[in-house]
Amino acid sequence: MSQLSRITSVDVVRQLTPSELAELASDIREFLVESVSKTGGHLGPNLGVVELTIALHRVFDSPKDRIVFDTGHQSYVHKILTGRRDFSALRKRDGVSGYPARSESEHDIVENSHASTALSWAEGIARANRIKGLNDRSVVAVIGDGALTGGMAWEALNTIADEDDTRLVVVINDNGRSYEPTIGGLAHHLDALRTTKSYEKILDWGKRTLHKGGTPGHMAYDALHGLKKGVKDVLAPQGFFENLGIKYIGPVDGHDTIAVEFALTRAKAYGGPVLVHVITEKGRGYTPAENHVDDRFHAVGVIHPETGLPVAPSRFGWTSVFAEEIVKAARKRPDVVGITAAMLHPVGLAPMRAEFPDRVFDVGIAEQHAVTSAAGLAFGGMHPVVAVYATFLNRAYDQVLMDVALHNAPVTFMLDRAGITGDDGASHNGMWDLALMRTIPGMRVAVPRDGDELTEMFNTALNEDGGPTLIRYPKGSLPEPLPAIRSIGEGYDRVDILDEDESEAGGRRVLIVGLGPFAPTGIAVGKALAARGDRVTVADPRWVLPHSSTLMQLAEDSDLIIHIEDGLVDGGVGDSLRDELSRRGAATTVHCFGIPKHFHTTASRAQLIDDFGLTPDAILDAVGGDQ
Amino acid sequence: MSQLSRITSVDVVRQLTPSELAELASDIREFLVESVSKTGGHLGPNLGVVELTIALHRVFDSPKDRIVFDTGHQSYVHKILTGRRDFSALRKRDGVSGYPARSESEHDIVENSHASTALSWAEGIARANRIKGLNDRSVVAVIGDGALTGGMAWEALNTIADEDDTRLVVVINDNGRSYEPTIGGLAHHLDALRTTKSYEKILDWGKRTLHKGGTPGHMAYDALHGLKKGVKDVLAPQGFFENLGIKYIGPVDGHDTIAVEFALTRAKAYGGPVLVHVITEKGRGYTPAENHVDDRFHAVGVIHPETGLPVAPSRFGWTSVFAEEIVKAARKRPDVVGITAAMLHPVGLAPMRAEFPDRVFDVGIAEQHAVTSAAGLAFGGMHPVVAVYATFLNRAYDQVLMDVALHNAPVTFMLDRAGITGDDGASHNGMWDLALMRTIPGMRVAVPRDGDELTEMFNTALNEDGGPTLIRYPKGSLPEPLPAIRSIGEGYDRVDILDEDESEAGGRRVLIVGLGPFAPTGIAVGKALAARGDRVTVADPRWVLPHSSTLMQLAEDSDLIIHIEDGLVDGGVGDSLRDELSRRGAATTVHCFGIPKHFHTTASRAQLIDDFGLTPDAILDAVGGDQ
Repeated sequence: MSQLSRITSVDVVRQLTPSELAELASDIREFLVESVSKTGGHLGPNLGVVELTIALHRVFDSPKDRIVFDTGHQSYVHKILTGRRDFSALRKRDGVSGYPARSESEHDIVENSHASTALSWAEGIARANRIKGLNDRSVVAVIGDGALTGGMAWEALNTIADEDDTRLVVVINDNGRSYEPTIGGLAHHLDALRTTKSYEKILDWGKRTLHKGGTPGHMAYDALHGLKKGVKDVLAPQGFFENLGIKYIGPVDGHDTIAVEFALTRAKAYGGPVLVHVITEKGRGYTPAENHVDDRFHAVGVIHPETGLPVAPSRFGWTSVFAEEIVKAARKRPDVVGITAAMLHPVGLAPMRAEFPDRVFDVGIAEQHAVTSAAGLAFGGMHPVVAVYATFLNRAYDQVLMDVALHNAPVTFMLDRAGITGDDGASHNGMWDLALMRTIPGMRVAVPRDGDELTEMFNTALNEDGGPTLIRYPKGSLPEPLPAIRSIGEGYDRVDILDEDESEAGGRRVLIVGLGPFAPTGIAVGKALAARGDRVTVADPRWVLPHSSTLMQLAEDSDLIIHIEDGLVDGGVGDSLRDELSRRGAATTVHCFGIPKHFHTTASRAQLIDDFGLTPDAILDAVGGDQ
Repeated sequence: MSQLSRITSVDVVRQLTPSELAELASDIREFLVESVSKTGGHLGPNLGVVELTIALHRVFDSPKDRIVFDTGHQSYVHKILTGRRDFSALRKRDGVSGYPARSESEHDIVENSHASTALSWAEGIARANRIKGLNDRSVVAVIGDGALTGGMAWEALNTIADEDDTRLVVVINDNGRSYEPTIGGLAHHLDALRTTKSYEKILDWGKRTLHKGGTPGHMAYDALHGLKKGVKDVLAPQGFFENLGIKYIGPVDGHDTIAVEFALTRAKAYGGPVLVHVITEKGRGYTPAENHVDDRFHAVGVIHPETGLPVAPSRFGWTSVFAEEIVKAARKRPDVVGITAAMLHPVGLAPMRAEFPDRVFDVGIAEQHAVTSAAGLAFGGMHPVVAVYATFLNRAYDQVLMDVALHNAPVTFMLDRAGITGDDGASHNGMWDLALMRTIPGMRVAVPRDGDELTEMFNTALNEDGGPTLIRYPKGSLPEPLPAIRSIGEGYDRVDILDEDESEAGGRRVLIVGLGPFAPTGIAVGKALAARGDRVTVADPRWVLPHSSTLMQLAEDSDLIIHIEDGLVDGGVGDSLRDELSRRGAATTVHCFGIPKHFHTTASRAQLIDDFGLTPDAILDAVGGDQ
């Protein structure tokens, strides 16, 4: 680690010789495997961008020049080079974030971890520079080939093509993958570009020029910089991007620091929008990742560094239940089809894809299309199941509303990683879906408390043919089954009673509703209140939106309701229950607990539950005033 | 109108001779100008697609084949050809809808009037056909060149390119315009394609073939249909679409029925996804529209049919106030920039564009990019003002949340056509924005009751540098100024008292809040309640989210609150006020009035206000139980 230890600031990187650079890259890889295997994190993507990131920081002068990372999970190398090398608490409270964070460094800009946004950010920043006359400043967006399948990236490219006078460099980090291999027409086009030779010719020319004008350790930067006049001759516009009117440089071997640096230098000198196509290899230099077909160690938990094998058992029990159930359903029903947005494995659609390859569709990082295509499939007689992370459904709100719900299409949404996820920071928490779904006419929403419930709800949803349904479940391992003491009502109206204490006649009638993973919390709160003399009913409404007649009856018969949900408390399911009671003229007090309306910093799920006052003790304290 | 009167069903269209077709097209244009000038409606777009729609219905066998219209406002000709020729109540209650409506006809599929969705719908339907083995059925999407700038369309194209075996025809209705001329790289590419000659060669070949095999009145359909083998030779893949891997036919003169029909027939026979590029002229055949530079009569009110001049004065008073204010602000502040999504004139940014061409950005039909680009501009030191219709902000929810709000960017959103719009049907009502904005941390929302307030709020928003702001105002003419009796608090905390009646000591303390256009309704309700003995305060909280401390104080001092808003009642501002009071331990009854959570059929704003019980009388009736 002799080179890595020298990097006290990004300026040092700019002074290294080519051989020192190679050593630095090797040091960084070793560091990444060693540290991320201990903490978990986005290992594969970062191993792929070591040389690219080094080159970026040598060619561009951050923070004067702006480097915007799309999705941000590939910013570990950037963090290391900009003086953040303590990865001991990566993605943990008070540790370094797994994404860029403005609070950490002036070199960080975009904290949103949702894909395909970087080009729009960069375009906006570049326009601002132009308006302010800061014509010597470059803005660089680093975006994966997978993220280019997202519609936002297209919207930005279409606009950028019109802006001849902005200094904007788009680096396509092309590893041929989103989480999975990238799909669609653009992927084929990038494949085709990879095999062209035009850039090699430019590189030869460049290496000759470098040889003449360069000084070791400084990459002939000045010499190249002064050659602007020659740029138009060596740029090789190609196909798709050329047709849009954007200059294209590439393809460049992303693991050849000199080649990348040369291409970026040319791009920087160009003065208008230009695209640099860099070919990288996800997981590069780490054999277990290179050999991993599914996702090349896109994101790992704690692993054994030598073997890459996980230390703990699977973290995704909820996903596994869904994965199994949809295969069973597909065997029985030829109309069941699965749709995902570049998340075949993470959401559990891979087993169905293996057995029914013609009935599972991965549309790329394209949630809007996934949802509206599902509306079309439903119109055509299918029952589509759209499986995405909860936080990403936000991106298709309008399509859920205007394409699925307005047409009352029988589409089932399966939202994985719903609620507090914690370690991926503010934008990965799945905390908005319940409040959003509340605004959608006809949408039925279920929150399972265990795997058995997930199974049952999924089958209920499939048998519904009158409109959209949504089931949401958290990240994490599956809890023990939590059977009901008894149930009231049928189907969507069924409410499970999880606990009741009628021993103390005469106490307040308290209804406790703990949605999904908070069902055990509800039981614990109930036991404490019962011990204090309240008559407690702990209920699970299961299908939580719209409120069932069974639940409303229970609610109207209560003096006090305590409602706990793994979602935004403001405007969430609990607030909705209070409002519904008010509309019916009931004055029952409803205490709502959930995720506060803030953007939450990185911490573990347990820490955030504690922060938000969602433990039984904190809830008891909060309702204490009603004793 | 001799040909038009023959069209009793779509089958008749298929029997007409070329000369009868020309007559029919002329009849339809005459009918459109005559009827739409009486009712208002999307005149320009429909005049442009007369021949195209005739050809679609001759080549494809709807409803077995599926024709999906993007945005749907260009479906008037389709309606006429499928037996809906009574346009006397176009866009009125119980009249023919201005968009496709499944309740009207089995030929209608997509009712969502938001742009860029048709390709995803068509892709889904085509996939369903393929899964079901319905291999003789075609699916056609008709999409404008402007709508191709929307990210969803790109997501769909990228997917479609991968589906060699679906019978999917994408018709680009290229009139070079969104509402305004289409912008961006793709527009330039389409321009370039227009000037190519390849299709003319194909057409020559086709006309020769037609001449040999055709029978008058039947367009040689069978002959062409049988020529599938020859298709690959005559298809001329080109540039952008070729690079994506989608077959391309074009460009075709969209006002030459025979040419369009020939191209569509080839496309139908091809068997895989194919794109037909049709050049049309918005407003074609109607001189006032053809001569109208701004938007070619995209949508008109009631007009004089000969001159095209409006019968009534401007319907967009709110827009004009904003238009004037942003120009004034831009003169004073070099950091103020305007952004819109293909809506320069309708949202009132045209005057600023005329004076500050470098500081107004039209990004095409690309709300996501508009919002995130604004975040970038803000990071670069600008104060961006994003002006869109309220219903279209839904499409950028994730960007408002994750790019603007998460980064606390000083972006101001101006939402025009907020609340009940009525005559454009379910998907144009701006009824979701308030409930959505409630879920966004740090977002400040204002609802002006008159033009003076709009002016003041806009200037407050511009002087805020700590985060995002949003101001929303309705479609329609500007009301008379409604001055406050007095004000309490300052800035965001200022609440205006519009009326108060303290004469009857001892009555209930009733707080009435009528947001924006419902301020006069609130005053009327208040006067009636005061007459019954209540002590009434009618207040306008102005900045309605988050709730100001001034408003909360007034609310906590009241026995009863009546809250009226021009937005979704479920989870809206009124519900939020009740929830906030509950969190503070206040048990005040809050009666909330607003738009019910349904998709609403076309009717006038006044009719819908009546339906929803938002008149003073209806509100008094509803709260009667509290007397």
